[in-house]
Amino acid sequence: MKIAIDGMGGDNAPVSTVEGVSKAIKEYGVEVIITGDRDILEKEFSKHDFDRTKLEIVHTTEVIENEDKPVKAIRRKKDASMVVALNLVKEGRADAVISAGNTGALLAGGLFIVGRIKGIDRPCLCSVLPNVKGGLSLIADCGANADCKPKNLCEFAAMSDIYAKKVLEIENPRVAVLNIGLEEGKGNDLVKKSFDLIKEMEGINFIGNVESREALNAFTDIIVCDGFTGNVLLKSVEGAAMSIFSLLKEAFMSNAKSKIGALLLKDQVVKLKSLMDYSEYGGAPLLGLNGGVIKAHGSSDATAIKNAINQGIKFANGNVVDDIKEFSQVFTHTEE
Amino acid sequence: MKIAIDGMGGDNAPVSTVEGVSKAIKEYGVEVIITGDRDILEKEFSKHDFDRTKLEIVHTTEVIENEDKPVKAIRRKKDASMVVALNLVKEGRADAVISAGNTGALLAGGLFIVGRIKGIDRPCLCSVLPNVKGGLSLIADCGANADCKPKNLCEFAAMSDIYAKKVLEIENPRVAVLNIGLEEGKGNDLVKKSFDLIKEMEGINFIGNVESREALNAFTDIIVCDGFTGNVLLKSVEGAAMSIFSLLKEAFMSNAKSKIGALLLKDQVVKLKSLMDYSEYGGAPLLGLNGGVIKAHGSSDATAIKNAINQGIKFANGNVVDDIKEFSQVFTHTEE
Repeated sequence: MKIAIDGMGGDNAPVSTVEGVSKAIKEYGVEVIITGDRDILEKEFSKHDFDRTKLEIVHTTEVIENEDKPVKAIRRKKDASMVVALNLVKEGRADAVISAGNTGALLAGGLFIVGRIKGIDRPCLCSVLPNVKGGLSLIADCGANADCKPKNLCEFAAMSDIYAKKVLEIENPRVAVLNIGLEEGKGNDLVKKSFDLIKEMEGINFIGNVESREALNAFTDIIVCDGFTGNVLLKSVEGAAMSIFSLLKEAFMSNAKSKIGALLLKDQVVKLKSLMDYSEYGGAPLLGLNGGVIKAHGSSDATAIKNAINQGIKFANGNVVDDIKEFSQVFTHTEE
Repeated sequence: MKIAIDGMGGDNAPVSTVEGVSKAIKEYGVEVIITGDRDILEKEFSKHDFDRTKLEIVHTTEVIENEDKPVKAIRRKKDASMVVALNLVKEGRADAVISAGNTGALLAGGLFIVGRIKGIDRPCLCSVLPNVKGGLSLIADCGANADCKPKNLCEFAAMSDIYAKKVLEIENPRVAVLNIGLEEGKGNDLVKKSFDLIKEMEGINFIGNVESREALNAFTDIIVCDGFTGNVLLKSVEGAAMSIFSLLKEAFMSNAKSKIGALLLKDQVVKLKSLMDYSEYGGAPLLGLNGGVIKAHGSSDATAIKNAINQGIKFANGNVVDDIKEFSQVFTHTEE
C-alpha cells in the first residue's frame, strides 16, 4: 500500500503534513510518497522518529497557491507538488493521493490527470457533516458541480453509497435527497426528477427527502444534492456554528460572574466545539475518478493529515474505484 | 389604516393572535379586522382591555390546517379564516393582511386572491435572518419559487430593496447574490446570469456575491437567491442553531460543576438565544402582490403578532405595492 501526499498544499504545510505523515507511517506501517521541496521536507522529517524506509520524497519546484486559478494552475505548473502527486496515482505508483491544497485545482487536476471513470458524467466531492449523535453524514455533491442533471444526482447517490460502505463501514447507508419539504413531489425540478430515479435504483437504501433543518440530526447517512446547494448547506452550518461559538465566547467574557461560569463549563464547551468541527472528521473524497483522490481540509493539523492517510488506505483497500466502475457499467446500461 | 388578520392560523391561534391584536390596537391605535369563529374570538377578546371600536370580527366557519394541500385548500375552503382575510385586502376593505397559518396556502391564496402585480413574474417570500450584530438580513426568495430564471432574481432584488427601504428603514440596502464563492464568475448558471443583470440595475446598491458561511455576519442587508436555495440556507442556519443550543443545554446539565456554571451564565445564554431567534424579527412579506400580505411565523406569540401588525402598517404606509408597480413598469420596459 502506497499513499501519495501533496507535501506543500494547505495552510499548515509542510509542518503539519510532515508530522501527519510520520505519525501515519508509525501507526499504519503504510508507505508514503510525499511531493515538495526536498530540503524543506528533509529538514521537517528530521524532527520525527519513524521508519524512513517507508518514506519516499519526490522533489518538486512549484506550489499551487490558494489564489491560483484552478485549471490554469494545473495546466501550467507541471512541477507543482499537487500535480506531481496526482501523476503518481495516474501512473499506478501510488494507490491514493491526499492534498490539503487549493480545492478547485484538486478537482481540475483529478479530472485532467487522474481522469473520470467511463460512464460517470460528473465526479463529486463528498464532504462530511458531523451530527449531534457524534456521527457524520456525507454531502454529495458539496461543490464540484454547480449545475446538475438528475442523472448526476443518481451517480452521487451510488458513489457515496459505495464510499460509505467501504470506507466509513456503514452497513446499509440511508440515502436521502436534500429538499425543502419532506413529502414526495416537493422541491425544484431537479430534485423531483432525481427523487423518482433514485427511488428506483437497486441496492440503494433510499429514505426519501431530508430538510436542511435536520442536517445535523443524524436522520440520514448520505445527503444527495447538486454541488451548489450542497456547498450552501455545508457553509451555512459551518458559518452558523462559528457565529454562535464566537457570540458564546463574547457572552462568557462579558462580566466577572460569567467568566467564572465559563471556567466551570470549559471542558464541556471544548468537547462540544470539537464535535461540531468537521475538519476533525477526515477529508472529502473526490468520487468517480480512476483513482483515490482525497481533499484534506485546508487547515488540517497533523492528526487530520494522519486521518486522511488512513482514509486513503481504506479507500484503496476497499476497491472503491472498482466498485464505482462496476456501477457505472450497470447504470449506463440501465439508462439506454 | 385597517389591518386584516387571520384569527385561526398558527400554532398559538387564536389565543396569541387575539392578545397580539389587543396589544397592537392599544399601542398603534390601528383598526383591525380579524377573521375566525366569532364565539371563540369574542371569548378571547373579553380577556383584554382595549378600544373595541377599533376591532371588527368577521365570522368564518372553516380553518386551513397545516396538513392541508395549499392550492386545494384555498380553492375549496371558501369560508376559511385565511381566505376571507385575503379577500378583505383584495376588496380594498383592509390595507394589509397577516396570517400565521399554512405558508403554502398563504402563497397560493396571495396569488389567486390578491393577485400578482402586472409585470412581476414571480412574487417572492422575503424572510428575515438575524445577524451577530443584532441586525438582520433579508433572504429573497426563501421558498415561494423553487425554480427560478435570472429575471426572477432581478425582481426579488428590486422588491426586497423597496421593502428594506420602506419598512425596515434601511437607507441604502446592500444587495448581494448568494453564491458558493466571492469572485464574479463563480456559481451555477442562474447566479452567474443574475449577477450580470443585477449589477446593471439602477438604484440597487449591489455589492456582489455573498457566501452562506457569512450569512450571519451582517455583510449584506439583502441576500438574493432562488427559493430552493434560500429555503436551504434559512433552515440550515435555524437547524444548526437549534442543534447547538440543545447540545449546549445537555453540556450545561452534565454534572454539578457545569450546572453551577450554567446558572452563572443564564442571562447571557438567554440573551444570545433570543438574538438568534428569527421569529422575534416579525413576519415575512410576500412581495409582488396587489396588496400587503405578511406571513407571521407559525409559532408566533402575542409579541410576534403585534410586531407583524406593525409591519403591515409600515408596509401600507410606505406604499410598497405602488413602488413595486412602478419598478415593474420600468423593468418590463428595460427587458424589451
